[in-house]
Amino acid sequence: MAREKKLWAGRINASMAHSVEAFTSSIAVDRRLYRCDITGSIAHVKMLARQRIILLSEAQKIVRGLKAIEREIERGNFPFSSADEDIHMNIERRLTKKIGAVAGKLHTARSRNDQVALDMRLYLREELKVILDAIRRLKKELARAARRNLKVIMPGYTHLQRAQPVLFSHHLLAYVDMLDRDGKRVEGCAERVNVLPLGSGALAGTTFPIDRAYVAKMLGFPRLSTNSIDAVSDRDFVLEFLSVSAILFVHLSRFAEEMILWCSEEFGFIELPDRYCTGSSMMPQKKNPDVIELIRARTGRVYGNLQALLTVMKGLPLAYNRDLQEDKIPLFDTVDTVKASLDMMREVVRGLKVKKERMLAAAQEGFMNATDLADYLVRRGMTFRSAYTLVGRIVRYCLGSHRRIEQLSLKELRRFNPRIEEDVYAFLALDAVIERRRALGGTSSDNVRRRLREMGV
Amino acid sequence: MAREKKLWAGRINASMAHSVEAFTSSIAVDRRLYRCDITGSIAHVKMLARQRIILLSEAQKIVRGLKAIEREIERGNFPFSSADEDIHMNIERRLTKKIGAVAGKLHTARSRNDQVALDMRLYLREELKVILDAIRRLKKELARAARRNLKVIMPGYTHLQRAQPVLFSHHLLAYVDMLDRDGKRVEGCAERVNVLPLGSGALAGTTFPIDRAYVAKMLGFPRLSTNSIDAVSDRDFVLEFLSVSAILFVHLSRFAEEMILWCSEEFGFIELPDRYCTGSSMMPQKKNPDVIELIRARTGRVYGNLQALLTVMKGLPLAYNRDLQEDKIPLFDTVDTVKASLDMMREVVRGLKVKKERMLAAAQEGFMNATDLADYLVRRGMTFRSAYTLVGRIVRYCLGSHRRIEQLSLKELRRFNPRIEEDVYAFLALDAVIERRRALGGTSSDNVRRRLREMGV
Amino acid sequence: MAREKKLWAGRINASMAHSVEAFTSSIAVDRRLYRCDITGSIAHVKMLARQRIILLSEAQKIVRGLKAIEREIERGNFPFSSADEDIHMNIERRLTKKIGAVAGKLHTARSRNDQVALDMRLYLREELKVILDAIRRLKKELARAARRNLKVIMPGYTHLQRAQPVLFSHHLLAYVDMLDRDGKRVEGCAERVNVLPLGSGALAGTTFPIDRAYVAKMLGFPRLSTNSIDAVSDRDFVLEFLSVSAILFVHLSRFAEEMILWCSEEFGFIELPDRYCTGSSMMPQKKNPDVIELIRARTGRVYGNLQALLTVMKGLPLAYNRDLQEDKIPLFDTVDTVKASLDMMREVVRGLKVKKERMLAAAQEGFMNATDLADYLVRRGMTFRSAYTLVGRIVRYCLGSHRRIEQLSLKELRRFNPRIEEDVYAFLALDAVIERRRALGGTSSDNVRRRLREMGV
Amino acid sequence: MAREKKLWAGRINASMAHSVEAFTSSIAVDRRLYRCDITGSIAHVKMLARQRIILLSEAQKIVRGLKAIEREIERGNFPFSSADEDIHMNIERRLTKKIGAVAGKLHTARSRNDQVALDMRLYLREELKVILDAIRRLKKELARAARRNLKVIMPGYTHLQRAQPVLFSHHLLAYVDMLDRDGKRVEGCAERVNVLPLGSGALAGTTFPIDRAYVAKMLGFPRLSTNSIDAVSDRDFVLEFLSVSAILFVHLSRFAEEMILWCSEEFGFIELPDRYCTGSSMMPQKKNPDVIELIRARTGRVYGNLQALLTVMKGLPLAYNRDLQEDKIPLFDTVDTVKASLDMMREVVRGLKVKKERMLAAAQEGFMNATDLADYLVRRGMTFRSAYTLVGRIVRYCLGSHRRIEQLSLKELRRFNPRIEEDVYAFLALDAVIERRRALGGTSSDNVRRRLREMGV
Repeated sequence: MAREKKLWAGRINASMAHSVEAFTSSIAVDRRLYRCDITGSIAHVKMLARQRIILLSEAQKIVRGLKAIEREIERGNFPFSSADEDIHMNIERRLTKKIGAVAGKLHTARSRNDQVALDMRLYLREELKVILDAIRRLKKELARAARRNLKVIMPGYTHLQRAQPVLFSHHLLAYVDMLDRDGKRVEGCAERVNVLPLGSGALAGTTFPIDRAYVAKMLGFPRLSTNSIDAVSDRDFVLEFLSVSAILFVHLSRFAEEMILWCSEEFGFIELPDRYCTGSSMMPQKKNPDVIELIRARTGRVYGNLQALLTVMKGLPLAYNRDLQEDKIPLFDTVDTVKASLDMMREVVRGLKVKKERMLAAAQEGFMNATDLADYLVRRGMTFRSAYTLVGRIVRYCLGSHRRIEQLSLKELRRFNPRIEEDVYAFLALDAVIERRRALGGTSSDNVRRRLREMGV
Repeated sequence: MAREKKLWAGRINASMAHSVEAFTSSIAVDRRLYRCDITGSIAHVKMLARQRIILLSEAQKIVRGLKAIEREIERGNFPFSSADEDIHMNIERRLTKKIGAVAGKLHTARSRNDQVALDMRLYLREELKVILDAIRRLKKELARAARRNLKVIMPGYTHLQRAQPVLFSHHLLAYVDMLDRDGKRVEGCAERVNVLPLGSGALAGTTFPIDRAYVAKMLGFPRLSTNSIDAVSDRDFVLEFLSVSAILFVHLSRFAEEMILWCSEEFGFIELPDRYCTGSSMMPQKKNPDVIELIRARTGRVYGNLQALLTVMKGLPLAYNRDLQEDKIPLFDTVDTVKASLDMMREVVRGLKVKKERMLAAAQEGFMNATDLADYLVRRGMTFRSAYTLVGRIVRYCLGSHRRIEQLSLKELRRFNPRIEEDVYAFLALDAVIERRRALGGTSSDNVRRRLREMGV
Repeated sequence: MAREKKLWAGRINASMAHSVEAFTSSIAVDRRLYRCDITGSIAHVKMLARQRIILLSEAQKIVRGLKAIEREIERGNFPFSSADEDIHMNIERRLTKKIGAVAGKLHTARSRNDQVALDMRLYLREELKVILDAIRRLKKELARAARRNLKVIMPGYTHLQRAQPVLFSHHLLAYVDMLDRDGKRVEGCAERVNVLPLGSGALAGTTFPIDRAYVAKMLGFPRLSTNSIDAVSDRDFVLEFLSVSAILFVHLSRFAEEMILWCSEEFGFIELPDRYCTGSSMMPQKKNPDVIELIRARTGRVYGNLQALLTVMKGLPLAYNRDLQEDKIPLFDTVDTVKASLDMMREVVRGLKVKKERMLAAAQEGFMNATDLADYLVRRGMTFRSAYTLVGRIVRYCLGSHRRIEQLSLKELRRFNPRIEEDVYAFLALDAVIERRRALGGTSSDNVRRRLREMGV
Repeated sequence: MAREKKLWAGRINASMAHSVEAFTSSIAVDRRLYRCDITGSIAHVKMLARQRIILLSEAQKIVRGLKAIEREIERGNFPFSSADEDIHMNIERRLTKKIGAVAGKLHTARSRNDQVALDMRLYLREELKVILDAIRRLKKELARAARRNLKVIMPGYTHLQRAQPVLFSHHLLAYVDMLDRDGKRVEGCAERVNVLPLGSGALAGTTFPIDRAYVAKMLGFPRLSTNSIDAVSDRDFVLEFLSVSAILFVHLSRFAEEMILWCSEEFGFIELPDRYCTGSSMMPQKKNPDVIELIRARTGRVYGNLQALLTVMKGLPLAYNRDLQEDKIPLFDTVDTVKASLDMMREVVRGLKVKKERMLAAAQEGFMNATDLADYLVRRGMTFRSAYTLVGRIVRYCLGSHRRIEQLSLKELRRFNPRIEEDVYAFLALDAVIERRRALGGTSSDNVRRRLREMGV
């Protein structure tokens, strides 16, 4: 049986080889663009009628047909065919079946090249809104957790060694600041997504008297692309989204890593609710934080997607090349991964049980007030470096007798330096150590409260 | 309604949150391991019976159940459930439904950790054979194309500038040498895949008197893993496959790039059959080499997959972590991409139409015999550097009068250097230029013929 | 001989192993931060004096010492020592040598963690200005080249197949639009760089009554970091710069690739001046576009740098870890590569010789007015799809007789469709084809002129 | 002043622009190839003489000159010039200066393209030997540490949750198995490095009657390249080395991560000697494991280098392109990083202090014998799944009363299942739990001893 001809079988004689069809078809992937494709086509066709490039009655027929197709797809009874390579061709052929030859007018003054660029931008624009909202909600959830645990003291770490005591709430707010920047980057990306490419044709523009501004207005685009060659071959907006996502996953993976550590028996700082954990097929006692391990792991996927598209784009001559089709899997997979991971992280934060006694106990070990003792001495006139060296000696002395600094007698302390007085003990108490750090950004509870107020939590 | 309990719901009280289930489930991806999983389970259970860890009758019941499940899956009537996270749990629960409580004996002396390591190795071992064969077939096809075009002369390029004439067949054989190395790397990888991990338990081995060597024999593994902790946390074999594939795609992308150039009107060296091309939705005259553009583009996907898993594995503490689940998408996607691209490339090579006149014409321009003129002068006693400089001057002279070297009169040539004699014209003929390069590896037709003989083509 | 003690040899007894010193030292790399380090230290110490944390006379002594050190470094007679690990320690030790124990007051209320974060931000802030300017200058140079070649016609390509004629000037302006977006991204990045981290201490803030706003004012930072833990462990600003650079290199590599193609004998569209080319060591006739090949190739370096730091940052627990030291090589190397490549590209554009006859000749082949013929038919009432199919047949007919569309007689054309009239020939002329594309963004010379006016060229 | 002409200034008239010289020069990077370059040249020139392509006396003169140059470079008084782009040109020009025009005969029958391919292979071949040795030595050091701590018990982890007790020695040997595979991969790579490319000329071979086999013999290459076009454009051997290194760094980073965890106060399993640690500039009590953090971090650099070269190579048309120059930085940097990190890791392993009481104490918590209790019940007739579920309930019961399983009374245990008898306590002892895992690869001390014997430790 003869194979059906492609819509574009203009010059080309033969049917396409089956193997080629399977190799090049993207319908399995790009069908999620159907709504954007139809929205874009409707705007295009309305403009064509308004500009009298086609008749109003033709436009109405086409619009009705497209809406009927949208309903078919949503109800799951659209006959997708991989012979029609992609979502655009699937819809156009179906339209022809439904309304006849007039369907052939839809593609007037348009090419698949500017059409797909439009669809991708419409799609990503919507998803960026969802992602911005997911970022906002995760920040809020972190703020709520900080509020609930406002005065909980934990060890602050550098090099995974205990360094200085901090408020757990302050630690959580570090992630809020990271997510703030992520949000800013998403907004910057959204601005560059929000540009209408339609009207660029295959690469050179179109010969018809189209009204691009009108299309832009219907579709809510504040700006028009200004160079047709660039508009059809540009995938910056996808690359920018992928790199913004990669940086977001730096943050998610750091937080996941910390929670995995905190869940360990050794740290024991937090507990996850059972319903966020999984067991082992062999070890009956296990309760594993799989969810956050997977958030950490999916960083790989997002980095890989970024690298994939960067590789595709490197050194491609202008304008459109079929290579650009390979933007879809990295984009769609990253959108899905980002949304699911932000939501899952938020659920985890909401369910977090904080074991504050374990945190506090840990904060009391490790000489975490040593810097403060040095500061104490500086206030009494030593240079920072001399104070630093002296405290180093005191710490070694403590290690030798298995005591904390504040467990040394005043006499012992004064043997190191006579400037030390009775008030040193109050100075070294963890609460005092924390509350003294009140310059903007420091871990004092005042700072935390101010930040939460700003966030309205 | 109460949700079903997980098989591993030993210690854990609550049902898993729906969102978590969706986030962690891998059944959509790993179901392709079903056959490996069943094969591995059957070998395991036979060994358990032989070692009298379970009864022979129990083993037989389990084996029958597993085979029935295999048939169900192959016929498409297996009730996959994403509540059962992965293919292993899907099969175990179904087995329980089919044969009752005795199914619970299957997992004796085994953990999902060593089970999934086994499945992945069984899977990849089979696919590597397919890939090796696809490499072999592509080499053969290249050799056949070389045989068909044995004496076709084309310009050899460096810096995409014409450099020296070469045989088109010699050029094709360059890819055979690359594919040779790819094959060697796949074989090296296969050796390291071909190691039995089963018997490593969750991470520490097992307390049962199992016979790992017997399982290995049944499953055709020449070697056993020697450290249980390593065996369950190792994904080297996947990483190695991904990097071998990335290098393979360096080769495929270079060849694709060349063919895209050769298909351009500017080069015009080859033509692809219509059924390997696609048209444009807007431009009726277009005939685009989409298939080879997509091969080039999928390099991005393969590089991205490698980077993805490298990222996942970085800094993971031993032994198993859920992060390892993220090995599957990169692996499966790369296997599919490699196989499809090798096959498609082979089809393209088979269908290639070589436009030898265009190649020859191009080879006659660009002073591609200039090096030979320098060599001619060296044979007459000049140092290479002086000869080189002199020929540079001759080329500039030719450029001034729009002629080729061999279009200069002997008198003109001798004005540059009197060592030049009448025999220079024969020396500079393209055929002679090519055939003189007869040291092993050079472009002479003797060398090409020898190589084809070695390949049996 | 006893080895010198580290400045931080507080608790730690032993000298550091030589091998460790070599392994961990960063002075060879980070010495380029010296000026930023000194600028930051001077601002810090002035604030300390103003807040009466140290005496004014002490501050003055320190400032004088630091300025003397700056001069030493600039004159090349600063005794760098890799025993002092990094630039910060080198300077502090030198200061101690120069002004005695009071130097020990410099580090009051500061840690290397917030110090290095400050230095990196000061450094990158300056470099981003340079890069923005380099982008602006390259855009200008492209615009000038477009102005010089305003009406030069070339083939526009899709899939590297001739598609539709475009103005060479329009093609160049596509890169201007890309660089516009690059500039926007650099500006977005600069905003996030421009935040003062100093005052965050090691991770928890500081106990001294510092005035961060005053420091910010002295150093020109419009914003202060708001979370100390985040401020010392954040490297987003570096990652964002690296990803912005990667996208910039997508553009540079695409342009480089095109110029390499255009320089080939096959395209022959442009020529590079000799002084931007290199020869071959063996082939006297060669003239290679090495400069643009290297621009293309350095894309690899920039992508690699991005991937490197993304990998470093993945899953790092808060706050500072030594891993962060590995931000410097990717950052510095990318800054250097971006600046040099932008400048080199600008020189190349300035030197470009355009071979307009070759471009025009190429534009006349390839049926590049086929879309316009379809449009012609649409204007006479056909649907686009029918017109498209018809023109496809005409093209095949032309291929059979080796003619262009406009070389067919009117009679021949009308045999395909009687709507075609005498005016078709004027309609299909290349000039007309181009000038008809006057909707915003299309390739008409009006559009090009408008864009150049906007750019003031 | 007139600038000096390049050696290859054959056709090209103008001097090279200064900016281009700076942009393209690689001498700062590739000078480390000098010895390989000279070795290769000497072999080449001896062959030329033997084949009577040049005179013996000429060859001797050249060889003497080259050896003198080698001495100059080694003594540091070679006048490197960046005007001579690369090491090859630097040496050739110097040779000309030293021995006059006869130096011009050195490049007979050779191109920089095959010359640099040779140098890179000679270089990497030597470095691979050093790396293989470093791997071997690290394995040995791990084995010695395992021997010293043969019976030390630690918790084995999955998901960073305590899972089953293992021997610390068994855990260390997991890394030996990883390094085993790394060694195998390096050997595979070395085989593919060990191929002589010289004689391939610029891309087409050479017209001179050279004897490649003789050169190969002098230089110790077992194989000759068989296709000249491939030989000059192939960088597989570098890519393979980079990917082998990336996988090696998966292992090093995992081990580093574990040691960082183990050094934390929370784990407290090991201590590093002071001379491998660094302090903080601000916190006097700190002792940070910087060395192992840096090993972990340099994974980024190695991954980035791999990605960089993969990007460079993607889609490059044959044969040589200047892009290939960008192979050097990734290669050299990876070689240095791999060698330094392996050596540093070995020093760290040698200096490791194991805190076995902390390890043992940790192993006693976390119900790590739960699997064994399930196995106990299986041996008494339960299916594994039922036993697993039952033990899950016992663990929950223990959690309620804050006891370990072995702290329950027999009566309590039998309430769960009457099959449990007095012998359960001996069965659950950690020693017994470990020693029972004696199937090959399990954690029993027998297995560890056998493995150490195999390694001769």
